[in-house]
Amino acid sequence: MFKFEVQFLGTSGAVPAYGRFPCCQLVNIQERLYMVDCGEGAQMRIAEYQVKWGKIGTLFISHMHGDHIYGIIGLLTSMSLNRRTQPFTIYGPSELESFIKHQLNFSGELLFPLQFQSVDPTKYKKIYEDEVSLVYSIPLNHSIPTCGFLFKEKERPRNMIAEKIKQYEIPYQYIPAIKDGANFQLPDGEIIPNKELTKPPLKARSYAFCSDTAYTEAIVPFVSGVDLLYHEATFTDEHKQQAIETMHSTARQAAAIALQANAKQLILGHFSSRYKILDALLGEAKEVFFDTKLAIDGLTISI
Amino acid sequence: MFKFEVQFLGTSGAVPAYGRFPCCQLVNIQERLYMVDCGEGAQMRIAEYQVKWGKIGTLFISHMHGDHIYGIIGLLTSMSLNRRTQPFTIYGPSELESFIKHQLNFSGELLFPLQFQSVDPTKYKKIYEDEVSLVYSIPLNHSIPTCGFLFKEKERPRNMIAEKIKQYEIPYQYIPAIKDGANFQLPDGEIIPNKELTKPPLKARSYAFCSDTAYTEAIVPFVSGVDLLYHEATFTDEHKQQAIETMHSTARQAAAIALQANAKQLILGHFSSRYKILDALLGEAKEVFFDTKLAIDGLTISI
Repeated sequence: MFKFEVQFLGTSGAVPAYGRFPCCQLVNIQERLYMVDCGEGAQMRIAEYQVKWGKIGTLFISHMHGDHIYGIIGLLTSMSLNRRTQPFTIYGPSELESFIKHQLNFSGELLFPLQFQSVDPTKYKKIYEDEVSLVYSIPLNHSIPTCGFLFKEKERPRNMIAEKIKQYEIPYQYIPAIKDGANFQLPDGEIIPNKELTKPPLKARSYAFCSDTAYTEAIVPFVSGVDLLYHEATFTDEHKQQAIETMHSTARQAAAIALQANAKQLILGHFSSRYKILDALLGEAKEVFFDTKLAIDGLTISI
Repeated sequence: MFKFEVQFLGTSGAVPAYGRFPCCQLVNIQERLYMVDCGEGAQMRIAEYQVKWGKIGTLFISHMHGDHIYGIIGLLTSMSLNRRTQPFTIYGPSELESFIKHQLNFSGELLFPLQFQSVDPTKYKKIYEDEVSLVYSIPLNHSIPTCGFLFKEKERPRNMIAEKIKQYEIPYQYIPAIKDGANFQLPDGEIIPNKELTKPPLKARSYAFCSDTAYTEAIVPFVSGVDLLYHEATFTDEHKQQAIETMHSTARQAAAIALQANAKQLILGHFSSRYKILDALLGEAKEVFFDTKLAIDGLTISI
C-alpha cells in the first residue's frame, strides 16, 4: 500500500497552551510532504519529530491569522541555513506574499527559489497537481477569507491479472495501455476485453483539512466520502456562544459535518487554550460521530 | 535578599535543534520581568514555564537576525488575545518598528499600547531606568549592528543600625535622609556622622547579556566585575575558523572574556545545531574560566 499519512505538528487554537503548538500539519503521500498551515514553532516540531526538511516541497496556507502563518519565516530561513537549493512553493491568500517578503527584506537572501501561488478562498477548485496527488480548495466560513484543502491521491491504473499475460502471451510493451483501460487483440483478431485482463485499482484515498470555520453545511458536498476529515473543534457545547461570536466550531458541530459527509474518520483540532483536558470535546463529538479522534502534537494517522 | 534571576527560554543558535529554542531570556529583578531577545517559540516557553505574561513590561532586542526576533509577533498577539491592556515597550534596532508594524497590519489591532525605543548599538550607554534597575547597551562585533545589554540593580540606600535609632532617639521622619547619607544633629548640637548610624547596603548586582558577537576584548571594560556574564559560545575550538567567518565566538573565547572582565560567573549559550551534546563547549571554557555553566532551556540562575 502506498503511503498516505497525516502528521500533526501543532493542534492549538489561537493561543498555544499545554504543550499544543499553533496549527501545522504534514501530509505525506508516497513520501512527498505537503505542509498545511505553518504556525509558530513548526520548525522546532520538524526538528523534534525528525522530519526530513528536504522532502517538504509545498506549503498550503488556509488564512492570514497569525496562529496559521507565524512559523513560515523561521521555516524558510532555517531551510536556507540548512543549504536547501530546491524551490519551495506556497499556496495561500494573496496578501501572504507581501507579508513574507517584507520579513525577508530584513533577513537576507534565501538560497532557494520561493514562489507564491494565490488561492481564491471562495471557490472549490483544483489548485495543485503532481504525479501522485491533487489538491482542491474548500471555501470555509470564518472571520476573514479562509479555505480548507482536500488532498486526493491520483487514480491509479488498473492492475494486470498476471495469469492473463501468460495465457494470451501479451508483449510487455502493451501492458501500460491495458492498465489504462485498453483491450488486447490476439493475432487471430479476437479481442479480449480489458475487464478480463485487469482488476480495478485500489480506491484513491483522500484527506480534507477544514481549517478555522464556523459551522457550515455548505462544505459537506466538498468533503463527501472523505477517508479522513480534519475539522476544527475550538470549543465544547458549553462555549457554543463563543464559537458563534468568533466564527469557530464546537466539537459536536465538527462531528455533525463528518456525519453528513459520510466521512470514514474524523479528527479534531484547533483547541482553545481554556481546555487543559480535552475529554469533553471528544465525548461530545462521539455522541454524533463515533469514529472520532483528538489530534495531538506529534500524532501520525495513516489513511 | 531581593530577587535577581535570569531564566533561559531559548539557548540555540540560528537553527533550533535538540530541544533548544532560539534565543530568548527573562531577567527578573524584584518581580519585574525584562525579556531579552525573542526568538521563535518564546510564547510557547512562557506557557510551558508558567511565566506570568502580565509581569513582562519591556523587551530588549540585540539585533535583527531572525533567531532573535521571530517570536515577537506571536508574543504580542497572544498578549492581546489574553486581554493585556498595559503598555509594552521594545528597545532595539531602529528597523524593528517597521518589521513588527508591517506584520501587525495583517493581524488587527493590539489591545495595548506598543512603543518602540531605538537603541544605538555602537554605544555603551544607559538606555533604560526604572525604580529598581538600569539597563545599558554594550556594543558587540557581529555581521550586522548588534549590541548586548547590561542589567544593573539600582544602588540601594544605606541600612540604619537599629540600636542607634534608640540610642539617639532619632525621629522616624529623619530616617530616609540618613539612609541616603545625611548626618544627624542631636538637640545639644552634636553631630553624629552618618557612618556611625548606618551600614553600607548590599552591593548592587549586575547581569551582562553578550548576544551574537565575534571575540572582541573591546567589551571587557563594559562587563568588568559583572556578577553573571552570558556570552554566546556558538562553536568549539574545532570550528574556530567557522566562528571567525560567521562572526561568532568559541566557548574558549567566551571564557577569555569572562576571565579578563573578572566576572563572578559565566554562562554559555547560542549553541550551533551541529552539537547534540555540549560537553566539549563546557570543557574548553572551563580550562580558561572555571566557574562556567551551560545555559539550558528552562534553567533559572539566581544572582
